[in-house]
Amino acid sequence: MRVPGTGPEPDTIRPTSDAPAPDAPGPGVVVAGGGLAGRVTAWRAAQAGLRVTLVEPDPVADPARARAASAVAAGMLTPATEAVFGEEPLMEFGIRSAALFPGFVAELEEASGLEVGYRATGTLLVAFDADDLAVLDRLHKLQRRLGVATERLTGRECRRLEPVLAPSVRGGVLAPDDHSVDPRLLLRALAAAGARAGVAEVGARVASVERPGPRGARLGVVLDDGRVLPADQAVVAAGCWSDRIGLPEPVVPPLRPVKGQLLRTRVPAGEPPLVGRTVRGLVRGFPVYLVPRADGEVVIGATQEELGYDTSPTVGGLWQVLRDARELVPGVTELEITETCVGLRPGSPDNEPLLGPTRVPGLHLAGGHFRHGVLLTPVTGEVMARALTTGTLPGYAERFAADRADETTTWE
Amino acid sequence: MRVPGTGPEPDTIRPTSDAPAPDAPGPGVVVAGGGLAGRVTAWRAAQAGLRVTLVEPDPVADPARARAASAVAAGMLTPATEAVFGEEPLMEFGIRSAALFPGFVAELEEASGLEVGYRATGTLLVAFDADDLAVLDRLHKLQRRLGVATERLTGRECRRLEPVLAPSVRGGVLAPDDHSVDPRLLLRALAAAGARAGVAEVGARVASVERPGPRGARLGVVLDDGRVLPADQAVVAAGCWSDRIGLPEPVVPPLRPVKGQLLRTRVPAGEPPLVGRTVRGLVRGFPVYLVPRADGEVVIGATQEELGYDTSPTVGGLWQVLRDARELVPGVTELEITETCVGLRPGSPDNEPLLGPTRVPGLHLAGGHFRHGVLLTPVTGEVMARALTTGTLPGYAERFAADRADETTTWE
Repeated sequence: MRVPGTGPEPDTIRPTSDAPAPDAPGPGVVVAGGGLAGRVTAWRAAQAGLRVTLVEPDPVADPARARAASAVAAGMLTPATEAVFGEEPLMEFGIRSAALFPGFVAELEEASGLEVGYRATGTLLVAFDADDLAVLDRLHKLQRRLGVATERLTGRECRRLEPVLAPSVRGGVLAPDDHSVDPRLLLRALAAAGARAGVAEVGARVASVERPGPRGARLGVVLDDGRVLPADQAVVAAGCWSDRIGLPEPVVPPLRPVKGQLLRTRVPAGEPPLVGRTVRGLVRGFPVYLVPRADGEVVIGATQEELGYDTSPTVGGLWQVLRDARELVPGVTELEITETCVGLRPGSPDNEPLLGPTRVPGLHLAGGHFRHGVLLTPVTGEVMARALTTGTLPGYAERFAADRADETTTWE
Repeated sequence: MRVPGTGPEPDTIRPTSDAPAPDAPGPGVVVAGGGLAGRVTAWRAAQAGLRVTLVEPDPVADPARARAASAVAAGMLTPATEAVFGEEPLMEFGIRSAALFPGFVAELEEASGLEVGYRATGTLLVAFDADDLAVLDRLHKLQRRLGVATERLTGRECRRLEPVLAPSVRGGVLAPDDHSVDPRLLLRALAAAGARAGVAEVGARVASVERPGPRGARLGVVLDDGRVLPADQAVVAAGCWSDRIGLPEPVVPPLRPVKGQLLRTRVPAGEPPLVGRTVRGLVRGFPVYLVPRADGEVVIGATQEELGYDTSPTVGGLWQVLRDARELVPGVTELEITETCVGLRPGSPDNEPLLGPTRVPGLHLAGGHFRHGVLLTPVTGEVMARALTTGTLPGYAERFAADRADETTTWE
């Protein structure tokens, strides 16, 4: 809780005195946005020897009040059970990032001294009725075609794994490699690791990026308080708010907000966990999930609504989530509600990320992660560090190049 | 938000300099509890010339964080549509209080300079299925027997009054004299009127009442910070927490908490009101209500759960409320959720209030209002002022005498 006149946010992170002095001279990199994409980019860039400043108005220590989709997300790392026909390249990108996760978590927890709630317990995807089962069977075929390890289970086998599942569950797919993480802990750890690596943080909002910048810099990052930060390179990682930042033409990231409503709940004190792993379901065509954490939290979500920048929780959204979760796991009624969350996923026109250099020299994007921002955090760090140090993308990420999103591209 | 070391709450109300000097010498009256019962008692007692101190730990200016059931309640003033067989005396007491309301509101708004959101728009009680309609018909007969003005309507007539009602609504009863008020505004106005009338307020919790008190006083009201307030008379008005206050034997108010979960919502900006009056429904035997306010707020509730002092909102509670509200008024899905509220109604063994003197000289109760605390506010003020100034109850309130609740009474 911020009290006027008591000075800066206690969580505003500035370089610690033992931070390594950045090797790079000059104005360095400014990252606009303190969600997962911005923070992993800042940390990795600082590790690569760049001088990095991150600009973010919301405190990382108070996730319930942060606006970043990263602070709302449930934290599923589920490329297999998230697979969609026609999105195979994105699925492969997700599988690459999921494979990076164990090493990424170990390095980050070591670098930050903070845990991130990574749980390698797999995911069970179940179908509620015959139509849902048909969808699930098609998905299972796609998973096999892509070489993903998943196992088709009967309803009874599903209930053997998760006894709280409703008797009506018709069947499922077990994805042993689809794990989860706590995105709020991940954000906090990235902030701490970034600070230790020398990332400076400014508590403000980026209004625009101009060129040239002050004092001979290539770019100028203009803050809402009027300050202008000189930058050799700038990274726009402000989620669905990215296109509210004034950018030099022809860079206009066409990101739209896709509203998600979800509930943070917890198992009553003294009660055993409700489910042992992430449970995703299709209930009469509606997707719903329950993501359990070691501390008893269960995240239940989520709607997917195209309503602009509206962040109001609604009766209808909450009702849909509760209805479907209850059909799948009747015992959810015992859970205590700790928070009603609304987040805005940043969606690009083709629902794929926008990464790396734009046509404006020095200006990069790291956005458009849509429903996959948590999963894609490690690979985003890898890709953006490469982009900032070499100006190019690794081959596996060329498809997601940010410079496809300019006036020469025909978006639907 | 209270910040340690920043001094008293800004809303702690102390006597203003132009407050009338209390006529009564000596230690006066101490009221334990700043809900509606406590505040109306304090105000009326001060108006009657008594020296009054009110003790309440929660700030009246932040109702979302207050624990009083008064700050959670929807504010229905509905003796007719709340009528229950076997509770006729309570219904008559409620009708008496409802009749006092217009004058009470006018006097309070004048005395405090604050509005209380009183809306004289009536209540429509509707039935969802044939069984619900049978219950409603019996209730309507009871209302007529008691001489209450209500009108039996067909489903079509109900929808003519409130076009958003579901087509499945089978019929209803219009109670033109069942109105509503905003309990949070009522609390605030009572606090302000009390302060103007000379009520002193102490921001603490009452731990116990002892006899004798300090400095020759009949009673001593012991606060949780160790202070002891001398008192000629003390009023325990701490809702379901009343029996956590240590009291001299044989006064043990047998009040239990009855949990209620409800939602505060609002019509999206620019939209017309959803309903024009309070709509109550029976949906497959479950009671549900929507209480609209002039500012667009719609309160939807409520569960009734016997779960001890548990104040966690639960998935099951919220789901029940949303399910029934949505059956009755499908358009509730568009409402924005502003707050998930949980309150603990103070229930006595016979669900009737406990008012006035106990067998301990000088010690009074004002509690056990259960589901009727807002409705009974004016009459509670009248009864308690009489009790504190004369030691007796008005004839119409003798049934609710607090001293029925001692060891000579057989409670179930």
